[in-house]
Amino acid sequence: MPIDQERLHRALNPRTLAVVGDKGPQYQWLTNQKDFTGELYSVQLDENEIPGIEEKGIANYKSLKDIPGDIDLVICAVPRQVTPYVVADAIEKGVGGISMFTSGFAETKEPQGIELQEKLVQMCTDAGMPLVGPNCMGVYNRHLAVKFGGGLEHGDGGDISVISQSGTHGIGMTNGAQGAGVKVRRTISIGNSIILNESDYLEYLMNDPETPAIAMYLEGTKDGRRFFNTLREATKKKPVIVWKGGRSTAGARAVNSHTGSLASSQAIWDAMLKQTGAIAVASIEEAVDAIAGLVHAKQPTGRNIALIAMTGGQSVAITDQFESYGFNVPELSDASYARFAEFFTIIGGSYRNPFDAASTIRSEAENLQKILEILADEPIIDGGVALEFRSRGFEKPGDLEEILDLLDDYRNKTNQPVILLMPTHGVMTGDTEEAAQVKDRVVERGFAVYPSFERGAQALGRIVDYHTARAEA
Amino acid sequence: MPIDQERLHRALNPRTLAVVGDKGPQYQWLTNQKDFTGELYSVQLDENEIPGIEEKGIANYKSLKDIPGDIDLVICAVPRQVTPYVVADAIEKGVGGISMFTSGFAETKEPQGIELQEKLVQMCTDAGMPLVGPNCMGVYNRHLAVKFGGGLEHGDGGDISVISQSGTHGIGMTNGAQGAGVKVRRTISIGNSIILNESDYLEYLMNDPETPAIAMYLEGTKDGRRFFNTLREATKKKPVIVWKGGRSTAGARAVNSHTGSLASSQAIWDAMLKQTGAIAVASIEEAVDAIAGLVHAKQPTGRNIALIAMTGGQSVAITDQFESYGFNVPELSDASYARFAEFFTIIGGSYRNPFDAASTIRSEAENLQKILEILADEPIIDGGVALEFRSRGFEKPGDLEEILDLLDDYRNKTNQPVILLMPTHGVMTGDTEEAAQVKDRVVERGFAVYPSFERGAQALGRIVDYHTARAEA
Repeated sequence: MPIDQERLHRALNPRTLAVVGDKGPQYQWLTNQKDFTGELYSVQLDENEIPGIEEKGIANYKSLKDIPGDIDLVICAVPRQVTPYVVADAIEKGVGGISMFTSGFAETKEPQGIELQEKLVQMCTDAGMPLVGPNCMGVYNRHLAVKFGGGLEHGDGGDISVISQSGTHGIGMTNGAQGAGVKVRRTISIGNSIILNESDYLEYLMNDPETPAIAMYLEGTKDGRRFFNTLREATKKKPVIVWKGGRSTAGARAVNSHTGSLASSQAIWDAMLKQTGAIAVASIEEAVDAIAGLVHAKQPTGRNIALIAMTGGQSVAITDQFESYGFNVPELSDASYARFAEFFTIIGGSYRNPFDAASTIRSEAENLQKILEILADEPIIDGGVALEFRSRGFEKPGDLEEILDLLDDYRNKTNQPVILLMPTHGVMTGDTEEAAQVKDRVVERGFAVYPSFERGAQALGRIVDYHTARAEA
Repeated sequence: MPIDQERLHRALNPRTLAVVGDKGPQYQWLTNQKDFTGELYSVQLDENEIPGIEEKGIANYKSLKDIPGDIDLVICAVPRQVTPYVVADAIEKGVGGISMFTSGFAETKEPQGIELQEKLVQMCTDAGMPLVGPNCMGVYNRHLAVKFGGGLEHGDGGDISVISQSGTHGIGMTNGAQGAGVKVRRTISIGNSIILNESDYLEYLMNDPETPAIAMYLEGTKDGRRFFNTLREATKKKPVIVWKGGRSTAGARAVNSHTGSLASSQAIWDAMLKQTGAIAVASIEEAVDAIAGLVHAKQPTGRNIALIAMTGGQSVAITDQFESYGFNVPELSDASYARFAEFFTIIGGSYRNPFDAASTIRSEAENLQKILEILADEPIIDGGVALEFRSRGFEKPGDLEEILDLLDDYRNKTNQPVILLMPTHGVMTGDTEEAAQVKDRVVERGFAVYPSFERGAQALGRIVDYHTARAEA
């Protein structure tokens, strides 16, 4: 159906919210909304459930229609056979939209599920009712604290918004992005997409001034032509990361069991995605890594990178990974080498690029500053700096901040990306908690940090590809 | 020089050990040997250091020659210019061998370092002295508790031994393997290999009855022909994993700064490795993942795998990864499907393979048992089971053990591999500590566990390749 974008805007930015059919002891959906900034209501008929709801200080009604005032969004969590009654009430009340968690529709392949889904489609289409789902986690709105789970942040700002055909991957991309210090403005878990589909959401987000970038997980489309046209339009306005699931034969079978989508040929997908200028990824890790790179890394203008490792073995390993993802690790100018020779420890170290720098950096903290100053002056380096970052070695309080200040200065002065690599396999076993604390501080300061050289090289490679293609377009 | 393997055996299995030149306040090398099962001595001239050594209850001598009785291994940590004197004393005393931590030799490209290295080569060659290194971490022996760092296990058993041209990667592979529940019998960090080289160690380990498998990190060889001949011989006796570092142009430059090796063409390496029947990997993560698979997974006979995920989105993602690494995820027989239909929850679930199983497994714990029983009877499955494993959901004490018992039964009954996947990005954010505890228990029970679907699929794919090639050879 043609989507009323204003009505969709109302549903995705609700000031009043009703949860229908939530159940104890956890009252999952009401609990999710505990920080909601607007007015929250419950609709529940079951007398056994009502006391638990009212104990939470939430007003309960026996019907949507009994709630005084307008409702912008209804979260529907009733058993599937009850859903038509809830939708009928919602239509009668004129709510903004419905987010339907309930599953058991066409994705089951059962006649009863298919019939129920057809009924909902008919009702919502006739009424012009925007329905998110069913079989989905629905809507997360960072500013308003509309949430579909614990651990989601509430606050201002927003670096990216997420559309996901899978609830798990919607949650995974959102949590993963947050863990990388990225503010997720909105996440929409779209489920079976029986009314609103992937193109409707993409259109909404590409026009959303509060969404600077978009990340999508898709298993298929309702209308391939419209989707790729919309995507082409969207990528002209902001970067779009697309993870296409169901790439393989059995993967496509899994897609069919999951959301009932018919997967199309992966080769066609890959070719189309490339044409649209989207950033294609193939797993949750790649999606989160690309998000972190896109949000935190300065727009790289080249592929000549400086690599700073802390041991000889790591200097070899980091170089292998960055070269295999298309970077050059060039030798530096004689002028630079002469400056390094003045202070760099070459017994157990090297400054040829890659750097084997631990002895130099540890012996005197200011040496990192000297290294970065020389690199900033070095004309051949245009792709930034990737640095092996150990959680150990910041003995003095303030050391970590000083180092991050230096790295911040470098990227501001050169306008090149700086990414940090904290491999979790290797010599760091045993200091996981310390490493986690350092990582948290690093992402708060707006650095992209990766748990392996390979993931950092792959992610930064994607970001360079994206900006290069944009510059050429 | 021709290596006396008996003398090398003595050096790698020392009953008496002398550390020369260790320094406070940490006394790194003496501290590393605190659990050493034989007799430990110190050699230190500096009067300022001696009290700290004696406080640790370790007898100190002013010269190696003053130590009463034989010394099997000398760990040399003196400044580089002192090394010829230590080597001369060691030769005069007739020690078993020397492990030289000291760096600053030919790898620096400085005349002084090159000259010193040449002197050591001459002395050791003339005397037939096995020298490990220099510029290395030396020897780890699990049974005798000869160690090169903290965190290394002391005990019986041994699943694999490690040879590494890089100290970092030797430590990383050893720690990584231990973290995966693998007992590392020996690790030898070989450094500049000026006397003993990679082929000598490989020859020793291929004939070592206590080493069932070998993992190597190499940046180059001293003698390519001998190395590949030895490797071909070794792979007939036991599996050998080889990670070749310095794959790329700048990577080769880094190798040269690191251990002074001249890297040869990566294409030649790749072709030669393939011919030898070794398992080739390209990073620390791939090395550790392959080690865990090799040690913990039953020898797979096929590529038809059953995949059990906990959500629809994950069932798609896990299938994409396993198919992309060469597995088939086949539909099962009608007989099996009829049995699943009796108990499997298909609202929000599927048993078509891949499985979307959370609702079924959570509603009744015995359902996992039923699933595994049907899969064990299913003739099409010959490649085992890979299972998304969540740390949450084991509410009752004993639940985790019951589940691991079921999985253990499956692999014992079918002789197929069972691997567990605990993705760290995704819905599990926030339960890191709990996840770490579950993981520790899982590896104690001898299961290979991987932090992403991709890493599990890649590792198991390598293990299938290896066993398939062996069966065909």
